[in-house]
Amino acid sequence: MTAVDFLPFVDRLAQVSGEAIMPFFRTAFAMEDKSGGGVFDPVTEADRAAEAAMRRLIGETFPNHGVIGEEYGAAGETSDYVWVLDPIDGTKSFISGLPLWGTLIGLLHKGAPCYGLMHQPFTREKFYGDGAEAHWRGRGANGGEASRRLLTRPCAGLDRATLMTTSPKLIPEPLRPRYEILENRTRLARYGGDCYAYCMLAAGHVDLVVEAGLNIYDIVALIPIVRGAGGVVTTWDGGDPSKGGAIVAAGDKRVHEQALEALNA
Amino acid sequence: MTAVDFLPFVDRLAQVSGEAIMPFFRTAFAMEDKSGGGVFDPVTEADRAAEAAMRRLIGETFPNHGVIGEEYGAAGETSDYVWVLDPIDGTKSFISGLPLWGTLIGLLHKGAPCYGLMHQPFTREKFYGDGAEAHWRGRGANGGEASRRLLTRPCAGLDRATLMTTSPKLIPEPLRPRYEILENRTRLARYGGDCYAYCMLAAGHVDLVVEAGLNIYDIVALIPIVRGAGGVVTTWDGGDPSKGGAIVAAGDKRVHEQALEALNA
Repeated sequence: MTAVDFLPFVDRLAQVSGEAIMPFFRTAFAMEDKSGGGVFDPVTEADRAAEAAMRRLIGETFPNHGVIGEEYGAAGETSDYVWVLDPIDGTKSFISGLPLWGTLIGLLHKGAPCYGLMHQPFTREKFYGDGAEAHWRGRGANGGEASRRLLTRPCAGLDRATLMTTSPKLIPEPLRPRYEILENRTRLARYGGDCYAYCMLAAGHVDLVVEAGLNIYDIVALIPIVRGAGGVVTTWDGGDPSKGGAIVAAGDKRVHEQALEALNA
Repeated sequence: MTAVDFLPFVDRLAQVSGEAIMPFFRTAFAMEDKSGGGVFDPVTEADRAAEAAMRRLIGETFPNHGVIGEEYGAAGETSDYVWVLDPIDGTKSFISGLPLWGTLIGLLHKGAPCYGLMHQPFTREKFYGDGAEAHWRGRGANGGEASRRLLTRPCAGLDRATLMTTSPKLIPEPLRPRYEILENRTRLARYGGDCYAYCMLAAGHVDLVVEAGLNIYDIVALIPIVRGAGGVVTTWDGGDPSKGGAIVAAGDKRVHEQALEALNA
């Protein structure tokens, strides 16, 4: 069974997740930090409802598969196939009404990311890949279904590169000066975006995404998308990104090399 | 003639503008800064095509009206009615593929903003207002047309407020320390957004938008939307915002007062 066979199933996961989340998006309920306690929190409610729905579907369809999710932890982690779920990546965008959050559905095969999908239910876009290819599906100019192959764009070097990061303030203090050195060498830095930033990199609109402090569920789904589009994604020291941590993704390997140099200068 | 009568005409402006811009959004052409010179620049091409189309329609329909536009300057500024146009507010989002830019169509009556519309053709959303009311139109959960009234949300004070600004680095150096004092007193700061930030404020998802260095065409269209939704928008010193400059918009007047205090402490 190749990773590609999972596509119709991943579409069903995205559908049940989107149906669980959308009633909570742009609703007027009072919102609290996750740490708030006691008060109704639509992000957590939506996160939990979506993850529970996806876990149910995975359990029914692939009872031998493991699952790692942001809300409900890990189960069956030693299975050959392990699903890695983040129902709402970009909760700050979500609570601010911005359509830059996404549902991340990743699949590990023997520990290696083999398939990933990002679903944005408000814009009705899906970005997905298997490490060899990546594709976008959404609405075309006429309002009907459209799709295209995702390909990163060439970029000769940092001084030509558009960088995205969710927020420099999310980069832990000891790492931030290294990030600032890198940002100062790029042409344009754009904040915000979370998972959407990696998808814009895969689509050839930005050249570099640099973050730190990521969890496994923040990155596993995005790796096969970035790689399938022709990009490179590693940790800041050039290692395996599939556990999270400090991540650098680039559309062109020249930019990736120069980014690692700048981060480790 | 009240401002509301302009609605069907503004819809036509939004349509011709969107049709001119969308072929350039997420295209793979090489991009250059506006200052680049000589190289094909899809943002400028889209900006110019959209503004020319809107100016043509205004000239045909209201030959006595004035127009101020980002790309083609001012004409007939002493007319009772003056249209203020920014075809792509948020060019950095536009070139990064993010759907947070918008087309701004504002109308001044004897110098006062009386009508404004923000159109996001990718998400197919319109936010519009006349200072007394404001509305959103877009797609509903079932994919069909939907609309609702825009209302800011109550927020008791800065320590409970979500702040948006396009980027702290866009705030000119002499003003930035005052901005930082304010940001540090809020609960959550979110970067990016341009015109979309003001619309999220009008929709009750964020509480405060603070920027500086705005041009007249960056703000005129947004003032009747924010005010129509129940919000307050002024310059940092509490004055008339309709010429641009340093702008503070809040959904709740208590937050606006505290923001002015913090900015002028």
